[in-house]
Amino acid sequence: MENLNRLRKILKNRKIDALLVTQPENRRYLSRYTAIDASITETSGVLLIPCRGTPFLLTDSRFELHAGLEAKGFEIMLYPKGLLPLLWKLLPKLGIKRLGFESHYILYTTAEKLINGTNKLGIEAVPVEGIIENMRVSKQRDEIEKIEKSVLLNEAVFQKVYADLREGQTEKEVAIRIENTMLAMGAERPSFATIIAGGPNGAAPHAVPGTRPLQRGEPIVIDMGLVLDGYCSDMTRTVVIGTPDEKTVALFRLVRQAQLAAIGVIKAGVTGKEADKAARDVITRAGLGEKFGHGLGHGVGLAVHEAPSLNRRNNKKLQRGMVVTIEPGVYLSGWGGIRLENMVVVEEEGCRILNRDTTFLDL
Amino acid sequence: MENLNRLRKILKNRKIDALLVTQPENRRYLSRYTAIDASITETSGVLLIPCRGTPFLLTDSRFELHAGLEAKGFEIMLYPKGLLPLLWKLLPKLGIKRLGFESHYILYTTAEKLINGTNKLGIEAVPVEGIIENMRVSKQRDEIEKIEKSVLLNEAVFQKVYADLREGQTEKEVAIRIENTMLAMGAERPSFATIIAGGPNGAAPHAVPGTRPLQRGEPIVIDMGLVLDGYCSDMTRTVVIGTPDEKTVALFRLVRQAQLAAIGVIKAGVTGKEADKAARDVITRAGLGEKFGHGLGHGVGLAVHEAPSLNRRNNKKLQRGMVVTIEPGVYLSGWGGIRLENMVVVEEEGCRILNRDTTFLDL
Repeated sequence: MENLNRLRKILKNRKIDALLVTQPENRRYLSRYTAIDASITETSGVLLIPCRGTPFLLTDSRFELHAGLEAKGFEIMLYPKGLLPLLWKLLPKLGIKRLGFESHYILYTTAEKLINGTNKLGIEAVPVEGIIENMRVSKQRDEIEKIEKSVLLNEAVFQKVYADLREGQTEKEVAIRIENTMLAMGAERPSFATIIAGGPNGAAPHAVPGTRPLQRGEPIVIDMGLVLDGYCSDMTRTVVIGTPDEKTVALFRLVRQAQLAAIGVIKAGVTGKEADKAARDVITRAGLGEKFGHGLGHGVGLAVHEAPSLNRRNNKKLQRGMVVTIEPGVYLSGWGGIRLENMVVVEEEGCRILNRDTTFLDL
Repeated sequence: MENLNRLRKILKNRKIDALLVTQPENRRYLSRYTAIDASITETSGVLLIPCRGTPFLLTDSRFELHAGLEAKGFEIMLYPKGLLPLLWKLLPKLGIKRLGFESHYILYTTAEKLINGTNKLGIEAVPVEGIIENMRVSKQRDEIEKIEKSVLLNEAVFQKVYADLREGQTEKEVAIRIENTMLAMGAERPSFATIIAGGPNGAAPHAVPGTRPLQRGEPIVIDMGLVLDGYCSDMTRTVVIGTPDEKTVALFRLVRQAQLAAIGVIKAGVTGKEADKAARDVITRAGLGEKFGHGLGHGVGLAVHEAPSLNRRNNKKLQRGMVVTIEPGVYLSGWGGIRLENMVVVEEEGCRILNRDTTFLDL
């Protein structure tokens, strides 16, 4: 309920009588309702949070039981004819005059219907963006604990699969083994599609695992994460079966130095851009700046990619309690890639590394 | 390219110079680019299809390699600063005056920025809805073959897991086993989150598998599907470990009769409503109409839920080549549920059942 009360204060300040929450992680953050949306077109429910009185979870009959068990303090209402017809009844009854809606997570056609329909009822539909995401960006203590558990389980899965890594296994085979192991060890699900990229395939930062067998001596990028109790983890290791050659070792050490440089500067008050620069400068000085073609990192929480971004454009200051990835990389077309990714919590005087796994970190 | 040409004719008729394709299955339908979008906010690319000349796949560097290998005939362009800045350059260069966008699969804020930005360039952004979905609704022969393979693989997975089904296994354990078996047997991924609902949990049509152990004699709803070569399958069986009691047998036979009644009437020209009614009448006559709280079925193809809907509201006629599920059910609060689901292809003189599995179908 604490999150709900914080939200209500913000709504009152913005003179919004109620907020329609369509973004799935925001819904979970406020209600503890765990259902997953297969896609934006197959929602398992939306919240209607009036500034005062009982909050509502609006859903369909398929989710009624589940919603009732989880969303304590919420009134569950069903929309057998769809969301909008229910809103046309509910909003006037609640005396809503200004309805906020999450304009960054609602389809254009739905928003148009919402705006026109509320208009006819004398209600103003107000697009708002990122209110709850902003609340989510600095994590509370219990959230950090959950993220840490997610990170540690992810590492345990990695270590188990790494111990069995052999040349000749295909990328896809290893990816499947990782995702199976996640589920068997108690994860809700992978937090994103596992990346296994051997040799030249590693030159694409988001390679899709294919049928290429892993080879001895080549760098193998393993980027994996899982969801545990709602919270995500995200880790990348680059490993070698057998002995890495000199080039691999040199690039590996460069990327690791870039990562350590960023970890060395991150604390509350440093901007996303400054954090990115600390790592990027190391790689640029080695003449490979153009081979690090993505940002340094991103926030992680209920979503695997959330604010803040650590990149060349983010001039906002990091705050205490933010959890971010530090994942520099170099990608050489035709050769492959090296990426190393850990997660840290931003603190007043520095940052705390959530990862403990050191596989291949100090090559 | 055939699909592209069909689309271009439609665009010309509607005086649209180019269509921006944001919906992921539409993207795959036109380009054969297989990347998956984790969510609408994490797209792996959009298509820009001008009425003439080379079509474009716009994406970011993470997907460049993958896109180039798959989207034959498309020019791959990267948007390091995001989609919209690239469009501001590309649209005038291509001489686009009227740009269609998929208003049913674009976020409100994105659409607003697109409309305002194109406006400044003297370009009209036209919301269009469902053009490609309408093309997708009747399947071509090669698509039906792929769907059939998906159905048969799904059945093979089901039979393998069913053979090992034992009392005491938890719902979640069985769901994980099913999804693991799918991947191990070659599926791209599950087409939706597998449902295993034992006893009273089966009263929710979309139950989430939990920690409850399966019990002897109770009805267990198993609803599962997978993606193979892009195409989805979706099947439900209700099974019993040991011997079902009289009530279970009676309800089971009722649901099966309802399913057969629908299969008996479905052919090109019959409406979704008429198909639904054929099944619903059987259940209503038994006094349980209110316990069948969802529609009879839905289309299946690149998406696991697509047009047409078979329900009480769809007055449109079914067409040859549509592939739909037939999935009546009865749900008794506190007791459980029975649902049976097969997939059929609509033909001129009837429908062809794609399923061959008969486990528990003729109880």
